[in-house]
Amino acid sequence: MNLEAINHTPKSSDAHAYGENTMHIRLRTAKDDALRIELVYGIKYDWMNYKTVPMKKILTDNLYDYYQANLELTDTRIGYYFKIEGKEESFCYTEGGFLEKFPDDMSYCYFFQYPYINKADVHREPVWVKDAVFYQIFVERFFNGDEQNSPKDLVPWDSEPKPKSFFGGDLKGILMKLDYLAELGINGLYLTPIFESPSNHKYDTVDYREIDKYFGDKEVFGELVRKSHEKGIKIILDAVFNHCSDSFAPFKDVKEKGKASPYHDWFFIEDYPLSKNPLNYQAFGYISYMPKLNTSNKEVKKYLFDTVRYWMEEFDIDGWRLDVSDEIDHCFWREFRNTVKGIKEDAIIIGENWHNAYPWLMGDQFDSVMNYPVTKLCMDYFARNIIGAKEFEKGLATLLMRYADQVNEAMLNFLDSHDTERFLYTCKENKGYLMNAAAFLFSYIGIPCTYYGTEIGMTGAYDPGCRRGFDWEREHWDKVLYDFYKKLIQIRKEEKALKHGTISFHSENNLFIMKRSFEKETIYVVINNTEEDKLFELPEKENAIVKELLSGAETRVEKVAGRFLIPAVSSLYLKTV
Amino acid sequence: MNLEAINHTPKSSDAHAYGENTMHIRLRTAKDDALRIELVYGIKYDWMNYKTVPMKKILTDNLYDYYQANLELTDTRIGYYFKIEGKEESFCYTEGGFLEKFPDDMSYCYFFQYPYINKADVHREPVWVKDAVFYQIFVERFFNGDEQNSPKDLVPWDSEPKPKSFFGGDLKGILMKLDYLAELGINGLYLTPIFESPSNHKYDTVDYREIDKYFGDKEVFGELVRKSHEKGIKIILDAVFNHCSDSFAPFKDVKEKGKASPYHDWFFIEDYPLSKNPLNYQAFGYISYMPKLNTSNKEVKKYLFDTVRYWMEEFDIDGWRLDVSDEIDHCFWREFRNTVKGIKEDAIIIGENWHNAYPWLMGDQFDSVMNYPVTKLCMDYFARNIIGAKEFEKGLATLLMRYADQVNEAMLNFLDSHDTERFLYTCKENKGYLMNAAAFLFSYIGIPCTYYGTEIGMTGAYDPGCRRGFDWEREHWDKVLYDFYKKLIQIRKEEKALKHGTISFHSENNLFIMKRSFEKETIYVVINNTEEDKLFELPEKENAIVKELLSGAETRVEKVAGRFLIPAVSSLYLKTV
Repeated sequence: MNLEAINHTPKSSDAHAYGENTMHIRLRTAKDDALRIELVYGIKYDWMNYKTVPMKKILTDNLYDYYQANLELTDTRIGYYFKIEGKEESFCYTEGGFLEKFPDDMSYCYFFQYPYINKADVHREPVWVKDAVFYQIFVERFFNGDEQNSPKDLVPWDSEPKPKSFFGGDLKGILMKLDYLAELGINGLYLTPIFESPSNHKYDTVDYREIDKYFGDKEVFGELVRKSHEKGIKIILDAVFNHCSDSFAPFKDVKEKGKASPYHDWFFIEDYPLSKNPLNYQAFGYISYMPKLNTSNKEVKKYLFDTVRYWMEEFDIDGWRLDVSDEIDHCFWREFRNTVKGIKEDAIIIGENWHNAYPWLMGDQFDSVMNYPVTKLCMDYFARNIIGAKEFEKGLATLLMRYADQVNEAMLNFLDSHDTERFLYTCKENKGYLMNAAAFLFSYIGIPCTYYGTEIGMTGAYDPGCRRGFDWEREHWDKVLYDFYKKLIQIRKEEKALKHGTISFHSENNLFIMKRSFEKETIYVVINNTEEDKLFELPEKENAIVKELLSGAETRVEKVAGRFLIPAVSSLYLKTV
Repeated sequence: MNLEAINHTPKSSDAHAYGENTMHIRLRTAKDDALRIELVYGIKYDWMNYKTVPMKKILTDNLYDYYQANLELTDTRIGYYFKIEGKEESFCYTEGGFLEKFPDDMSYCYFFQYPYINKADVHREPVWVKDAVFYQIFVERFFNGDEQNSPKDLVPWDSEPKPKSFFGGDLKGILMKLDYLAELGINGLYLTPIFESPSNHKYDTVDYREIDKYFGDKEVFGELVRKSHEKGIKIILDAVFNHCSDSFAPFKDVKEKGKASPYHDWFFIEDYPLSKNPLNYQAFGYISYMPKLNTSNKEVKKYLFDTVRYWMEEFDIDGWRLDVSDEIDHCFWREFRNTVKGIKEDAIIIGENWHNAYPWLMGDQFDSVMNYPVTKLCMDYFARNIIGAKEFEKGLATLLMRYADQVNEAMLNFLDSHDTERFLYTCKENKGYLMNAAAFLFSYIGIPCTYYGTEIGMTGAYDPGCRRGFDWEREHWDKVLYDFYKKLIQIRKEEKALKHGTISFHSENNLFIMKRSFEKETIYVVINNTEEDKLFELPEKENAIVKELLSGAETRVEKVAGRFLIPAVSSLYLKTV
């Protein structure tokens, strides 16, 4: 066997507390290398009463097979090792390496250990995440509900945005369109920043305690939260704490008074007086109007945490999306989490981490991150067709194995955002590809999130192209796409297998096949993203009762002895009970 | 190449901030598999100005080679990937997998990322750790300095200890023997628990704010700290926070009043009234007189952190060793660290984790742990002779790659403790093996720690055998051993290469060879733990000036054209300048 490929990292996503008495243990081997793997575990103070359970191969990627066993424990102080049976050899894999036989008399020196599940350390996802269906609104471009508060020099609503255009979208606009959102079926809104800021995107905050005047005021925001809650919709705000606007009062004070300003340690100033060129203070991405905040300064922390408390306590918001979260210190985020969860235990914390975010997702900081790596895979498979179904599912497997299961369940999955091309644009306007990608997204583990307008067929290149005004003229909408999205959302909310189910992948013949199972229900998600019709054969035993959830139309499904025709560029949700 | 063996985990010990502007990046490959590895890195907002540096193969274990590059950065917001050249193939290893060519136009989607080194997250070891030489005292057995405060029914000082024997050792005893410790040369004392407790080991605390009456009082403890500090010796106390004594007042209250006790949530009670058999409350290792404390209860935290503050602020102690630290929640330890470092930035925090302790050593909890896995390797190699020099060094390499470099520098390394056999006992009284092991320990990375009496030849089996009274009759001492220890301690404190040097292993012919280098100085630690004389050949270019530090006696070193005779069971420290 390929011993070098075998890996288990104790007390990591490979061995995580899923609950106070539930432990999920994973093991990685080279692909197709092991015949059988057993987990041997026992209470460390009572080793000789150890138990042996088989591990299940749950996922496979390009290089590895991943095995998992889920343990229910009464005493969580355990030691464990793996019995690995290969084609020609068998051995034990321990913290002390590979052994022919496990030395039970010196077990403490050799076993992997999970010392104790402390309740305080268990990473609890908000109870509602499995039911969540999110929608992201770039506020300035959704709807202008109050023309009184619009900036001067508005561009026409249907014009092509430029980096500095103002369209006039506001909070009143969202409030007025709540019925639309409720009808669509979403139950969570992630709003890009709404605090006072000179830009249209408002990622450069001038005052963290004020609603931007062009967006409305606290009264309308309060009403938006209340009305949303009445409709069962949660509100997530964008916390831009890595940097602020250069018009943020403390920064202005430093610009004016230099080192003498009481705020000089709120930023990272290299030299006085401040200069934009050459830039002599730290700024997000070298953008001089976004000076970086010193989030380890006590006053900055107090100011920002008071800000968090203010919006949560006064307005009852349901969570935060954290801008540029990976450039802020972990200490800050730990205090942030304590603050947020102290006010509302079920509030969600979603980081903006584009890369492997494990160090932020261990339970002490975020619940979730924006799942850009899945977005990238969707682009490559559904939109650009540069990878096939098998490569896609292997990419997903690699990503699923990065994090604990409760983190995967809370990941924010999306096809596009304010920081990407519109997915339909990436698809070169091929709506079928977008629909396939959406069919995947709404059946995958994690929170599906729709970027405003993607559901009606909005397109556009990278920023500013992806930030067009939402087209409210229904006759302009892609009705098929819109209805498909509504259907997907409805199914996602109804089907337990999609919300709570286990996941496995079975793609073949360039047909993406994902199985979600919960209790007696199974849904096969079958996606044909090729230009030719394909056949899918349902495993025989599950051939009794089959319902196709997406179309409902029997005619679309040609079922011959368990074989289903999957037309070119289409998706099926085949439910077996 | 064995692609499955290649691994780099971003933002882990594989990519850690060693300082505010210093990043250490590691890569693992299968052994002898790569010809050449380069690290390509660039500022993520300015990727196209990336740089390429070679990586150095620093360590090898049973299965893997480990490469490292240390970067000095002005902007720490970097992306990076690895260029790996094998015998037959070359490729790039990225966060997105293995690629033939790195896509510079989509770098952000593929590179590994270290988003930013925040000062607050940098794991700083206490500035003094590289100079530290520790000594562990099991207080009840070191010296009885005040017979007035001894328990009744003392056993004779030289008797064989039983689990419940009292010998009468106390703090006054340590105070009276400070000159001995200063003469030995140590500069740090780790004392097993000294707070009020009914047992001889005192790992079952009755009152965390009182000195045990048989050990002395606060006055003598204060004097001990003061006098130790005068001699440049730091004092580390044992924090037993996982559990307490069943005579701890809050537990007694629960025993008495049951659920009505205000302290019922201080513990984990399953049922009332409390019962020892069957045990119906959680206790350390099912030992009923050691009930587990609920360290996530706010009052418990306040009580224990106030305890920490009390001993640090009132008595100026220099750090804590944490008993059963792996069974306490991480949240507790993070607050503990903030408390400790808030009082004394350079205090040390040493966990008692016997297994892989990475989740506690990421910078937010401990500085160090007791390095039991190294103890185990030393037992297997030096004492039991069940592994050879090569296997020993490979074991060390595996362990070194678990943690960041600053953690390795702060690890508490020891041959024996109150929880092991005496090392000399494991050696079956072969003093040469013990001396070899000590020669290793004092030249290895980390803090060498001597368990009281090991330096004079004390022996004994596992607890209670390892807890005999220190034999103060000098004529009983093994004088050769004692002088050797003194010499080792002196050399350790003098030689920069041993304190600050890089480390590499070059064992061959069952001769353990470790090279420590700092600036222009190099020390080869050469240990022959076999029963036959061996020759060691110094690399030629370093043949100019060689000084053997341990013996000083030229006659012992037979130097012929760079070849040194290493007699059976002996060690040399060969220093080249």
